[in-house]
Parts: sequence; structure tokens; C-alpha cells
Amino acid sequence: MALLVQKYGGTSVGTTERIKAIADKVKRFKERGDDIVVVVSAMSGETNRLIGLSKDIMEEPTPREMDVLVSTGEQVTIALLSMALNHAGCDAVSYTGAQVRITTNTAHTKARIVSIDEHNMRSDLDAGRVIVVAGFQGVDETGNITTLGRGGSDTTAVALAAALKADECQIYTDVDGVYTTDPRVVDNARRMEKITFEEMIEMASLGSKVLQIRAVEFAGKYAVPLRVLSSFTEGPGTLITIEDDGSMEQPAVSGIAFNRDEAKLTLVGVPDIPGVASKILRPISDENIEVDMIVQNVGLDKKTDFTFTVHRNDFKRAKSVLDEVCINLQAETSAGDNDIAKVSIVGVGMRSHAGVATKMFEVLSEEGINIQMISTSEIKISVVIDEKYLELAVRTLHSAFDLDDTKTVEES
Amino acid sequence: MALLVQKYGGTSVGTTERIKAIADKVKRFKERGDDIVVVVSAMSGETNRLIGLSKDIMEEPTPREMDVLVSTGEQVTIALLSMALNHAGCDAVSYTGAQVRITTNTAHTKARIVSIDEHNMRSDLDAGRVIVVAGFQGVDETGNITTLGRGGSDTTAVALAAALKADECQIYTDVDGVYTTDPRVVDNARRMEKITFEEMIEMASLGSKVLQIRAVEFAGKYAVPLRVLSSFTEGPGTLITIEDDGSMEQPAVSGIAFNRDEAKLTLVGVPDIPGVASKILRPISDENIEVDMIVQNVGLDKKTDFTFTVHRNDFKRAKSVLDEVCINLQAETSAGDNDIAKVSIVGVGMRSHAGVATKMFEVLSEEGINIQMISTSEIKISVVIDEKYLELAVRTLHSAFDLDDTKTVEES
Repeated sequence: MALLVQKYGGTSVGTTERIKAIADKVKRFKERGDDIVVVVSAMSGETNRLIGLSKDIMEEPTPREMDVLVSTGEQVTIALLSMALNHAGCDAVSYTGAQVRITTNTAHTKARIVSIDEHNMRSDLDAGRVIVVAGFQGVDETGNITTLGRGGSDTTAVALAAALKADECQIYTDVDGVYTTDPRVVDNARRMEKITFEEMIEMASLGSKVLQIRAVEFAGKYAVPLRVLSSFTEGPGTLITIEDDGSMEQPAVSGIAFNRDEAKLTLVGVPDIPGVASKILRPISDENIEVDMIVQNVGLDKKTDFTFTVHRNDFKRAKSVLDEVCINLQAETSAGDNDIAKVSIVGVGMRSHAGVATKMFEVLSEEGINIQMISTSEIKISVVIDEKYLELAVRTLHSAFDLDDTKTVEES
Repeated sequence: MALLVQKYGGTSVGTTERIKAIADKVKRFKERGDDIVVVVSAMSGETNRLIGLSKDIMEEPTPREMDVLVSTGEQVTIALLSMALNHAGCDAVSYTGAQVRITTNTAHTKARIVSIDEHNMRSDLDAGRVIVVAGFQGVDETGNITTLGRGGSDTTAVALAAALKADECQIYTDVDGVYTTDPRVVDNARRMEKITFEEMIEMASLGSKVLQIRAVEFAGKYAVPLRVLSSFTEGPGTLITIEDDGSMEQPAVSGIAFNRDEAKLTLVGVPDIPGVASKILRPISDENIEVDMIVQNVGLDKKTDFTFTVHRNDFKRAKSVLDEVCINLQAETSAGDNDIAKVSIVGVGMRSHAGVATKMFEVLSEEGINIQMISTSEIKISVVIDEKYLELAVRTLHSAFDLDDTKTVEES
């Protein structure tokens, strides 16, 4: 008998029909003898509907009231799913964040969980009930309703699993696991059976948006075994867990992530004096623009080229800030490029395999793909290339690092 | 400077445009120097939408979860109205029933208020904030969300006014006050400036559905001055208050109520033995059918005719129960009539004016209207007549008891 925390996202509970299907699914687990805590999101579309109402009222709604408003979305789902479970003959009881007492700080619309009182849930579990908890929400110390920000339901699930010392936290979604890369780009992308927290964090932040990165970090910190599975089909999904040093040899590369959401900006011929990096980036961050990759090279002439990437939506604003910085710093010129893509190879095995970077660069070079920027971490190597080569680069790397699903290859 | 509790119903907050209009209205009161507590219902249509979702899940939804579900309706409104007030430059803060701590018993979907903690509200009022409270909801002792049943927002408003010792509880609705009778039936029905709690209770229960009767009883019990006004137009509305014996002479009749929702059932020729009334009514109430008027006359032959009225929706069921009772009690026959209407004259002034009943019967008789049943209380006389004479009866009585709006008469 295991204690499972299961999280179902907005699409999985998008209609009353689907809610009934989830109730049947949960009931089967319960009948198998497991104790179940279910965490749900708002029905798909509901959060956007509520945000739309608030925007009718004012452009930038009061954050405290925004939380009161949007937290109703999950509250509707917990009530409906609990009813559906009861209707299916499975004793169930709903909990809002306040009723669990998920205490957060007071940072409305992006609160962080401070503590969870598992006392009430424990007695309902002991009484044999399925517990249905509203994801994404909590209360601060004085009882104000808070929300954890978009995707916060994953975080709620992991936090509950940690507090209850659950055997597994299962995130049900519309994909059946974490893949070696995006199957829409590479036909024979392979579902991974296992992935480490570290790898998952690198994969998630690079655009494989299966799980909220915050939830993965949280799970890693508290060593909560995390599993991604499909709401709609049966299957083991992908287990995200702590690195298992004792087991079989890790492959060098576990997966390939990519995104085309970024744009590149370069300040050319900057005088190479101390503090120049912050002089360039401070005005950017003052505009609330987030910077991803940063590369700086010092030339022989005591001048440097400084390159960084931002989200494409921020490109225009960032460019105009940089034009001003260019004048102030007496740099030669500023340049920008929207048509780029970032490709990353990720794997804890990289640590013990030399030459992974070299192989990556060789493979790309053989295809005539020019590398514009390089950035590396312990378990990840990212390159920026011309966007038009993205698919080619991902497919070639996927194959070169032995990630192809051979079964699928045979079939095709 | 007064402390006002203002309640706005679902139609008044039915769209974001209307919510903004209410915010402007509240702001004007606030600027006049009053302290304001606003109680709101769910946006019109929202409660029915939520009930619809629950019906998709199961025919008779779990009451506890029903309350979790429908209470989100008011929560959406408090957030939006607070935003709108803030946007209008008026400091405001929203409260769910749980956040006020409106404690109720655990009778889900029809809970009764047990106590209200005014401590938190008081400190926000002292800080100059408008308080926006979700009507219709509370929590039981252990924190389960409860609702007060339909129309419970009026009760919330009155209870808050009592707890806070407010100067007035103002119920904003889509009519501009309480009328001497339904203006759709009598053109020159007149808005009353004042009406006593007792009269209002008789008027409300008889079909002048401006206010929830429970709220009026509550207000009477705690002597909370209650005012009914229009959300959409300016005007003093109608003040509902305790009887003011010291002031001017009361008119004999304050208003005329009526309804056509009832049906009449008669058991003819019942042996007149002790306990016969309960033998007739027990099987009816066992079927959860509510009985309104009851009239019994003893004849000379030791037999009696027993007549009562029920809601028209219950007529068929009641008739078939009565047919059985007829056999069991060895009565002569049972009869029923759907085409009836009840007309009542109401007024605390009746107590001191003799002959009001006589005048009523004379007036009806002059118009050739036959009276089928009569029932009287301290401040009310009700008659059942053939439904087709309803409008004629109401108009004639309205005029005969000097209720016509003479100004309107002159104009027309």
C-alpha cells in the first residue's frame, strides 16, 4: 500500500466528462489499496476567463484581489471532482489551500510555500477518504488568499508529497512522459524511463515544458520521487529521481532541448574596462527584461564584443536600451538578431565523458551549421545557431548521441 | 458619519460594467464620510452555471461539495468589486465568509449563521477601507464552507449590520422600494416610505418578493433598520423598521399582496373526531409538501369540511395523498382546485381599526367576487378567490383602502 499524490492539469479536468473519467481512474488506484491525494488545476480556459474579467475592470488588477479571483478556478474543480468520486462510490473530500492550511509568504500572484499542515489530511486519509486539494493556492499567515503563479499546481503536488512523505508524486499531463527531444521535430524521439532532477531542470528550462521547473527543484530538494504520466493513456511515464550512481553506466547525453523564443543582441567594440558587463546589463534588467545566455570575448585591441540573449517578445525594447548604452559606453555599434535558435544537449553522463562538447561541435560543423554562441554548464552544452538549421541540428545530434528509438526506426 | 451595510444583488453586479458602476456609487457614499461594508451576490447567471456543472456530474450533488462549488460565485464578485473600487481610487479589501469568520451550523446548502467575528472588519474600517464581503456563505466550526441557501446574501447583510451595529442595512435591488401592491397589476401602486418588519414579513411571504423573509425576520429580531432601494436609480426607497407607535396615525391597510402559486384541496364530510386534522396533514407533510392556509368548519351533522392550500407544483402529489386519506378516514370525497388566487390586505393599522375585514368582504362582494376561504392574523386578512378575478380584486381593494397614488392618477 502506497501513498500517492496525483496531480491532474487543466486539460485533464477540462470538462465534466473528463472529470468523471479522472474520478474513475483515481477510484481504480484507491481500489488497488493505495492512499490517494489528488491535486487539481482549474478547468482549462477558466483561469483565462477570470483574468479576462479582471482586465475588464482594470489593466493591472490589485494583486491581493487577483488571488481571491483566480483561486476560485481550482475551487470549482475540487468540488466537481469530489462529487464525481462520491458518485463513483469512492469517499472523497475537497480541500482549498486555506483548508489544508498551505501557508505561503504574502507575495500575491507569485507566493512561495512556507509550510503545510498535514494534520487534517492525515485524519481523512486514515478514514479511507480520497483527498482532493486545490492546486496553485495557499494563504498567508493572516489568512489572505495567495497563489503560487502559473503552473503552481505542480508545486502544490510536490509540496504535499514532501509534507506527507508520499511514496510518489505523479504528474498527469497530456504527454506520456519526458522525451529525449520534441517528437514533433524528431520522429523517433524516445520516452525516457528515468531522468535525474538536474537533467529535468535543464530540459525544462530549455523548453521541454512538461513540468514546472520550480516543482522539479522542490522535488529534488526534498527527494520526492516524481513521475510524469499521461492522463489519457496507460503507461509507466518517466520517473524523475535523484541520481543513481550505483546503477548502470549513464549515457553521455540524455536528451536534446531547444527553443526558438530567444533573440540575440550584441554590443560590438566595447572598451574592456572593469564593470562593463554590469553597465550593459543593468539598464536591461531595469526594464524588467530577463537575460538568458551571456557571452563575452576579449579581443587583442583591449576591446570586447558582448553578446546576450533575451526573450523574443523583449527584443525591440532591449535593442533600444542597448542603442543608448552603446552611445554612453562609446562602443562601436549595437546589433541584434531575431532569427536564432538555441540547441542544448543535456546529461549527467557528460561529467564523466570527455569530448562530448567536441563531438557536438563536429557534428554541427559536418552539417555546415555555424555556431554563433556557446554556453556550458556541468551537465549541459548550449549553442545558438541560425534558426533555419534548428530541425537539422536537433535531428543530427539526436542520432549522433544514440538517442534514436531503434524500434521506431525499424518500423518507419 | 454613519456605518452602512449595503447589499447588491446578482443583477446589480451582473457584468463588469455594472460592477464598475456600483464601485462609483459606493465611492460617493464613502466620500460623503460614511463607513461602508458592501455585501455582494454572485454575478447573475453564475450560480446557475455552477449548479449546471454539478448536475453534469451527479443528480443530487454532495451537499458539502455543492457549497465549495457555488461559494466561488460570490468570491469572484468580491474580488472584482474590490478591484473596481481600488481602480476608482477607493481603498477596498475583500472578505470571503471564512475570512470574516461568519460561523454557521453545518447544514450544508441551507446553513444558519451562529456568530460573526467583527474584529478583522473593524480594523479595516478604522483604516478607512471599504469592506467587500461575499454574501450567502460562511464556515462551520471546523472550517467547512457552508452556504445559507438562495437569497442568503440578504441575510448576510443583515447579520453583518447587526454584528457591526450599523446605522442602516441597505438592500439594493432592481426595484426602487416596496409598493402597496404589484405595479404590474395596479398602475397607481404607490412606493411606501416606511413599512414595519411585521408588515414586510406578511408582504414578502405573500409574494412581494423584494426581500428574503429570513433577512427581514433577522433584521426585526436585532432591530436593524433595513432599507430597500434601487441599484440603478436615485431615491430614498422604503425603510423597514420597528413600529413607531409615537408617530402619526397608521393607515388601516398598508399594502395588498397576492399570489397565484397555490392550489386548494378539500376533504368533504370528514367525521369530526379529535385528531382528525393531524391525520389529514401528517401524510401530506410526510411527502415534504408544505401547506399554507388551513380552514376547517364544523357542520351540524358532526361532519366537517377540511380545506387547505399547497403550492401548485405539489398539487398532483397532494391530491393523490388526499385520495388515500379520504378512504382511510371514511370521508365523503376529496376535491381539488388549481385555478385559485390568494389576495391579502396587510397592515399594522388593522389592530386599531375595526371593520377592516367587513369592508374587504363588502368590496369584493360588490364586484361579484365569491370568497372561497378566509384566513386572518393580527395584521393580515387573506382570502382565496377564483383566479380570474385576481386583478379586479387587487385593483378594487387598492382603491378602496386609499392606497392609490393620487399624483399618478392625476397624471394619467
